Amino acid sequence: MTALTLTTFNWVPDIPRGYVRDIRVRWALEEAGLPYRVASVPFDARNAEHFAHQPFGQVPWLTDGDISIFESGAILLHLGQLSDALLPSDPRRRSAATEWVFAALNSVEMASLPWAILRFSGDGEETPGRKRMDAFLKGRLQHMEPILAQREWLAGGFSIADIAMADVLRLVDRFDGLAAYPACRNYVARATTRPSFVQAHADQMAHFAAADQAMSAD
Amino acid sequence: MTALTLTTFNWVPDIPRGYVRDIRVRWALEEAGLPYRVASVPFDARNAEHFAHQPFGQVPWLTDGDISIFESGAILLHLGQLSDALLPSDPRRRSAATEWVFAALNSVEMASLPWAILRFSGDGEETPGRKRMDAFLKGRLQHMEPILAQREWLAGGFSIADIAMADVLRLVDRFDGLAAYPACRNYVARATTRPSFVQAHADQMAHFAAADQAMSAD
Repeated sequence: MTALTLTTFNWVPDIPRGYVRDIRVRWALEEAGLPYRVASVPFDARNAEHFAHQPFGQVPWLTDGDISIFESGAILLHLGQLSDALLPSDPRRRSAATEWVFAALNSVEMASLPWAILRFSGDGEETPGRKRMDAFLKGRLQHMEPILAQREWLAGGFSIADIAMADVLRLVDRFDGLAAYPACRNYVARATTRPSFVQAHADQMAHFAAADQAMSAD
Repeated sequence: MTALTLTTFNWVPDIPRGYVRDIRVRWALEEAGLPYRVASVPFDARNAEHFAHQPFGQVPWLTDGDISIFESGAILLHLGQLSDALLPSDPRRRSAATEWVFAALNSVEMASLPWAILRFSGDGEETPGRKRMDAFLKGRLQHMEPILAQREWLAGGFSIADIAMADVLRLVDRFDGLAAYPACRNYVARATTRPSFVQAHADQMAHFAAADQAMSAD
């Protein structure tokens, strides 16, 4: 097997810690038990090499031998091809897990991320824009709720679909957006108590804490 | 080969016509020359069977034999596996095309769709929420611009990555959001003058126009 390297920022402010998208990749790697190393790029000075790997100047990206992949969804699909623990080999279940990765990112996160941005924009709760984005997210969550009440995981056993969906929903939960959706909350709790998530989260927090120590030692 | 069936709404209002996401699937099918049939579900009365295929009550979905797939991104990946005209077989280029499908949907459309929603919300242009969402989209487009100035297509030859990205950007263009991004506009023009897009667009318009005629004949 070729070496897997996950690249993330060397440091981020406190608020995004624990929520930087490298956690999706760490989680998958821990879940599959795949060996990997972590590399860092400067948060404050994004250079041409960074943009060559990630054209929007964000993180994470993954290198696997001579292939470099950005977009957490694409990385999850790539890792899924390396391990049945992440993506089932049965064609129907594999197709189901793949479509739910897209649903997490393109149907739910497309509503939840702008909702989170607007929530902290300073606009009043009753502005038309806030109300439309609240309704957009509600339209997604009200359909996820009965699905997650009936299923332990989205596509048979635990898969990359659950890494994507649980990570998207846990940001909504952080800002109290799941209060009316107990099945969604229970799903987030189910997913984030897995040892693979606990390890991935601790590793991300330790990675950024180490940067604080390095800076204070300068 | 098993039969491919694309399901879309029987009718939609005038404004979304030409932009319903089934066009991404039609475009890919035309590009690859894959035979398919089109089925319809009611726009006004979404039933349990609809939700069984598409859990958010949207369209499109695709059936391929006994596999049913929702999410336009997942459908594009599935069709890519059926045709080299959609997804190159070389591993590096295949990986590049896949990551750009995610980039189109999870990085660009995640900014552009909320931007379009807020634009018609009735909020003033200078409200903090509008300004944040304008900045979110600008942050994406300013990185796409030099990339699309240098490349004809995103991942070597034309692929599903271009179907996803061009369809996302053409909605921005519709609402005058690409005025400052000539390379993005030229890319949309390049993509949408392909015979496969022209056919797909004409077919979607004809599909909904036929519903108008059926209703007026009632």
